[in-house]
Amino acid sequence: MENKPADLNPAVMLTEDLLLHHVADNVELLNTLPEEEAAELVGRLPAERAVEILDQPEFAMAPDIIRLLAPAQAAALLAAMSADRAVDVFHHLEASERAGLLDRLDPETRASIERLLVYPPNTAGSIMTTEFVSVPSTWTVGQTLQYIREVERSRETIYAIYVLDPQSKRLLQAVPLRRLITAQSDAPILSAARPYAPIMTTPLTDREEVARLFRKYDLLAVPVVDTAGRVLGIVTVDDAIDAMLEESTEDVQKFGGVAALERPYMQIGFAQMLGKRAGWLCILFVSEMLTASAMQHFESELEKALVLTLFIPLIMSSGGNSGSQATSLLIRSLALGELQLRDWWRVVLRELPTGMVLGSILGAIGLLRIGLWQTFGLYDYGEHWVLVGFTVAATLIGIVTFGSLSGSMLPFALQRLRLDPASASAPFVATLVDVTGLVIYFSVATIILRGTLL
Amino acid sequence: MENKPADLNPAVMLTEDLLLHHVADNVELLNTLPEEEAAELVGRLPAERAVEILDQPEFAMAPDIIRLLAPAQAAALLAAMSADRAVDVFHHLEASERAGLLDRLDPETRASIERLLVYPPNTAGSIMTTEFVSVPSTWTVGQTLQYIREVERSRETIYAIYVLDPQSKRLLQAVPLRRLITAQSDAPILSAARPYAPIMTTPLTDREEVARLFRKYDLLAVPVVDTAGRVLGIVTVDDAIDAMLEESTEDVQKFGGVAALERPYMQIGFAQMLGKRAGWLCILFVSEMLTASAMQHFESELEKALVLTLFIPLIMSSGGNSGSQATSLLIRSLALGELQLRDWWRVVLRELPTGMVLGSILGAIGLLRIGLWQTFGLYDYGEHWVLVGFTVAATLIGIVTFGSLSGSMLPFALQRLRLDPASASAPFVATLVDVTGLVIYFSVATIILRGTLL
Repeated sequence: MENKPADLNPAVMLTEDLLLHHVADNVELLNTLPEEEAAELVGRLPAERAVEILDQPEFAMAPDIIRLLAPAQAAALLAAMSADRAVDVFHHLEASERAGLLDRLDPETRASIERLLVYPPNTAGSIMTTEFVSVPSTWTVGQTLQYIREVERSRETIYAIYVLDPQSKRLLQAVPLRRLITAQSDAPILSAARPYAPIMTTPLTDREEVARLFRKYDLLAVPVVDTAGRVLGIVTVDDAIDAMLEESTEDVQKFGGVAALERPYMQIGFAQMLGKRAGWLCILFVSEMLTASAMQHFESELEKALVLTLFIPLIMSSGGNSGSQATSLLIRSLALGELQLRDWWRVVLRELPTGMVLGSILGAIGLLRIGLWQTFGLYDYGEHWVLVGFTVAATLIGIVTFGSLSGSMLPFALQRLRLDPASASAPFVATLVDVTGLVIYFSVATIILRGTLL
Repeated sequence: MENKPADLNPAVMLTEDLLLHHVADNVELLNTLPEEEAAELVGRLPAERAVEILDQPEFAMAPDIIRLLAPAQAAALLAAMSADRAVDVFHHLEASERAGLLDRLDPETRASIERLLVYPPNTAGSIMTTEFVSVPSTWTVGQTLQYIREVERSRETIYAIYVLDPQSKRLLQAVPLRRLITAQSDAPILSAARPYAPIMTTPLTDREEVARLFRKYDLLAVPVVDTAGRVLGIVTVDDAIDAMLEESTEDVQKFGGVAALERPYMQIGFAQMLGKRAGWLCILFVSEMLTASAMQHFESELEKALVLTLFIPLIMSSGGNSGSQATSLLIRSLALGELQLRDWWRVVLRELPTGMVLGSILGAIGLLRIGLWQTFGLYDYGEHWVLVGFTVAATLIGIVTFGSLSGSMLPFALQRLRLDPASASAPFVATLVDVTGLVIYFSVATIILRGTLL
């Protein structure tokens, strides 16, 4: 202990250590700390690095850090952050906190943030940045290069140069940097553009739709234009990637029957986690109570043929499984835009025979099992075991077909109702199929076993 | 009809029409055609456009088109394609077809493709391209710009300039284009590099891991280096995006209990679709047969207390639902690298109380339902209805806790066994919980109802 100089305060050591590493690694470390400690560390860092850290979308606690810092420091950092990230922070603050911080910003920053704040979350407008390089179409390649060298040299990444009509400011073309370098210096800037119109989007377009543009056209950035064709901002590929992954994560979580989490698993509070799960679990539980009602309805059949109860879990789970298979396939096809709403009947025409064949395979296995157990004396299904076997097999065909059909149609139905098709969760499909499954089972049993067991 | 000139053959019209549209839109159209028609159209297009189309990863039928074209034309197109896409096509061909086409390629292209073919699918090596711009560290900024103008002008996109040690060819730095433009022309190229070492990867790194690098460091391209630090190729952001989405799609499909599809839903043949679904469905069905065995085991209890059967579907589905919630959360956290294998006990410490609280909520609702139905005479659960209610409630607490725990641990167990944690499907978890659920239910019933119903 005596060897350590008095000023080797662990916090000071840590800030120095942070500066030696990549910002992304800083974020990884900070994410493991409690908010107060992280805020203290960020507050001690040179403003430039603090801004870089706050600019990382992976730094989910940025709004909490801003809240914990002194208002003057917080406002200075927000003003230096990229506009899209600053807006993201503002979206997470309470209205009162928001107003206090906005008042401290310079009028220009404040105006640009207030402009972006009006776009609803998950739209192109909410993930775009207002920092991009644009030049009038009257310029030459050389003028543009000179402009980048002098005015835009602080910008870390330039994706493309946006060429605007000098009067109307309408977007005419996007010139990739590579083309700028290889073009003649005295040639007009438009001569370096690609031969086709630039791909663009509008501020209210859903971010999932924007991500599809990136995928389809292999873009690095897409300009967001207003109705007059003027550039409002650009969505960059890194933000598009984040949007894609958040959407995929939400899809998996919703499919599992959980409300989408806003933060990584370990960063969510216990009460919040309960809230995300209890809602759906209760809804499913109450719906599933219909199975108890259905069973009560068939009570006399159950009393007469107790052997039927043995196969209830088996039959119901097969319906749920085939439904969840179909749902997972269709959710993804709809999310990736491979299928449209109007294609629903083509899916019906595929799922109907698929379900019938799959059901027949399971039915055959089920029949075999009952036959084997009976023959080898492993269990006695009674004198009518052959009829019981056929009841189980016929029910499996019906329930797997019903499961495949309803599992595949549910995402379409939700899309039709303008809801997210990914809300069609596996548990939801299973519940839907369970109740119907019981009805199918006892109806088939009534037909096949009438006069023997029933 | 008379007005149409004789040579207005629809295929000719269509090829002309294709040239007027963006390549990505061409691909969208071709994907809707039968393979033979698509091959004929691609065969008629100017080679340059045909190559652009074949280069699109969204053009899933590229290997079929290559197979259908005349070998000489196919080889010429393959030679002109980007190396990573050509390799992808070769990966989809039979060994005999592969050899025939490789023989027709020029030695250089052939060697580069054979080098890439050795990397297993889903590795960085399999998705990298060998086309990148590298210069020795002895050059100046001006020399590098001149080189790009003269030698590399045909390249559509340049992500960064890779600066190599002139002797060992080891990668020293990556210089973004923007920095090249703003740097002094006579300055050494290294002076334009970023202050930290370039992010790189190795050819055998899993593509999911590579995608994580892109996300974490907001990259546009990542160099793939051998053990000596020499650049073998680069993975570009568009390929990283495709890898991410394929992995996400596989995750959703596997979670739904389907083997991952290699093509969009409507492009898969009927038999292939059956194959992707029947396997898991049969495995799950056979495992679920254990529920029938469990029920047979508890036959005497069932006969004595038929009222217990009414709640079997309700109880089992609650276990499956809570399990599938936990699994979906953990699969995603593991896939995104938010959690590591060693974090499993932290998850246990969260899931144990979460499951108990969620189970208690469902238990309370279940108890309420039984009480209400009994009180208002909707159904008669018998004289011991209070005990039946507590049996159901206690079972729900047990089964939801067990479901949450096993659902969250299954992805860890699979990762520990070096399997994909995303193989933990909702149906798989449900099946696991179903069998255990029955045992829990009848054990609880034996304890609570001994001496009354049992």
